[in-house]
Amino acid sequence: MNRAGVFLLACVPRQTNIVRQNISKSIRYRTASMAPTAISREDVLKYDTFLFDADGVLWTGEVPIPGAIDFVTTLMKSGKRVFIISNNSTKTPEQYLAKIERVGFKGLTREQLITPAIVLAMYFKDRPEYAGQPIYLMGVDNLKKTLDTIGGVRCFGSGPDVFSGTDQDFIYNFDMSVIPKAVVCSYDCHLSYMKIMKAATFLKREEVEFLVTNEDYTFPGPNPKIVVPGAGAVSSTVRAVSGRTPTVFGKPHKPIGDYLKKHHHIDPSKTVMFGDRLDTDIQFANDNGFTSCLMLTGVNTLDDVKKAEQRGEKRLVPKHTFSFSH
Amino acid sequence: MNRAGVFLLACVPRQTNIVRQNISKSIRYRTASMAPTAISREDVLKYDTFLFDADGVLWTGEVPIPGAIDFVTTLMKSGKRVFIISNNSTKTPEQYLAKIERVGFKGLTREQLITPAIVLAMYFKDRPEYAGQPIYLMGVDNLKKTLDTIGGVRCFGSGPDVFSGTDQDFIYNFDMSVIPKAVVCSYDCHLSYMKIMKAATFLKREEVEFLVTNEDYTFPGPNPKIVVPGAGAVSSTVRAVSGRTPTVFGKPHKPIGDYLKKHHHIDPSKTVMFGDRLDTDIQFANDNGFTSCLMLTGVNTLDDVKKAEQRGEKRLVPKHTFSFSH
Repeated sequence: MNRAGVFLLACVPRQTNIVRQNISKSIRYRTASMAPTAISREDVLKYDTFLFDADGVLWTGEVPIPGAIDFVTTLMKSGKRVFIISNNSTKTPEQYLAKIERVGFKGLTREQLITPAIVLAMYFKDRPEYAGQPIYLMGVDNLKKTLDTIGGVRCFGSGPDVFSGTDQDFIYNFDMSVIPKAVVCSYDCHLSYMKIMKAATFLKREEVEFLVTNEDYTFPGPNPKIVVPGAGAVSSTVRAVSGRTPTVFGKPHKPIGDYLKKHHHIDPSKTVMFGDRLDTDIQFANDNGFTSCLMLTGVNTLDDVKKAEQRGEKRLVPKHTFSFSH
Repeated sequence: MNRAGVFLLACVPRQTNIVRQNISKSIRYRTASMAPTAISREDVLKYDTFLFDADGVLWTGEVPIPGAIDFVTTLMKSGKRVFIISNNSTKTPEQYLAKIERVGFKGLTREQLITPAIVLAMYFKDRPEYAGQPIYLMGVDNLKKTLDTIGGVRCFGSGPDVFSGTDQDFIYNFDMSVIPKAVVCSYDCHLSYMKIMKAATFLKREEVEFLVTNEDYTFPGPNPKIVVPGAGAVSSTVRAVSGRTPTVFGKPHKPIGDYLKKHHHIDPSKTVMFGDRLDTDIQFANDNGFTSCLMLTGVNTLDDVKKAEQRGEKRLVPKHTFSFSH
């Protein structure tokens, strides 16, 4: 039994710039307040496309947020376009859809679920030069399945990879018989020194692409006292050692927005994004021209919004707040 | 036999800002050139205190740089103060002194060898609240010996630490019976996900100090095709996951300079530092008010100096160049 499975479905950064910085109370607003306004259900329903972050917005753990199921069901019945946009790449799309249904959201299809894993797989699929090619994967087996099945590549490297003994002979025994076409970093509970060495060695070749599902530093775990490192734990060390800058697929980065526009032809001006985090969801919405709606059922608060405003970080400030149950 | 031992004595960053950035040829000098001038042996001998980086300055691997042994011997015979300032923390002081002597430098004492490990150990020793206290160490056993013996602390955590099986039960079985007084990051060939989780969990407590020997991203290894991750591989991921900013002891950071001034009462205006790297040695010298001398027997070249000048990075520009053999 995988007791950790439940919380691994929710992948968000533990610490944002917002909570990392102590903002002096003496800092004054430099510009007129851009404070978000509450948007009514009636006004929200004027949009065509509805993007939802998952954990903290549609559910918490396995419990739906009050009003969420009813709201999403209403949207779908009235012909609106609905997508779940999650940074979680530790489950296959099928596993994720099973979770969505288990929580109580019925009738969502695979096309309505967008994760960095799916977008990355489509990135491979869309490029003929990747067909059947080896990919060095620092990630879990479920990600390997997603990338191999949808993307048509051959991932290697997942699972435990450590050296034993007291010697550092591993440096001499490094097997470079397979050079991958890309290095992929994601959540990897088997992250090890050997893996970092291999990734950085492969990335010494400029032609090897450096791709990252998402850079969430931690997962919300079952025990608030214990910090559970996320995909950002992997990418941060590979970035540092290789000196390379990766393409990051997760929110708030560009690829998911580009994917929605290319594969689903959404109109940003008629799209609204609901999220609970300023530095992933809200920035993602603002950067892509979607209307950003902060849900106050998750991590960030209106006080965090105020602090972002005070720092002049406009990209983190939502246009609206919204509640399913009002 | 530890075949990797030789190269592990030399710990330097593989990629500096200098080589990471492509400098457009169109960039013009914004200020008058600060290009280093060659300093004569006669003028160098006017200084009182001589600081030497090791690998690339005094030796390469096990081979002394031409003229280095003679120069250092002459200095010591004429009563000058000589120190070797290395970022290497993977050997005990005794092991490092044995290497120095094996290469051919005779008569150097333990007090003349300064590494981040030694400075960190003295940091613990100088603070009564650390006496006998537990320290969570991401580093090799030699560092544990140095910190325990000189610093009087009790390091735990070195060696392999991975979880087995397909489950993530480790999150539920996390042993927090010992809370360390500090987390120390250094070179750790047994770096693992478990260790990162433990370090970040301990660092969730603000009272736990975050200390790093050095942040060299890589070691120069025996095979130039293989990237060997250094202490920076460890500290970068713990920084990212914990969101904490550590005290870094290695060059170019402050603690080694402070140590030299406090424990050896050196006069910066009468001190000259010889190094082969701009971003560690030269910046360290410039930041501490030592006269900086670039040795052209190691990593960086005069072209790197020019690029640093063009970017306006004055702290990376040496005052002089010097050669032992001229």
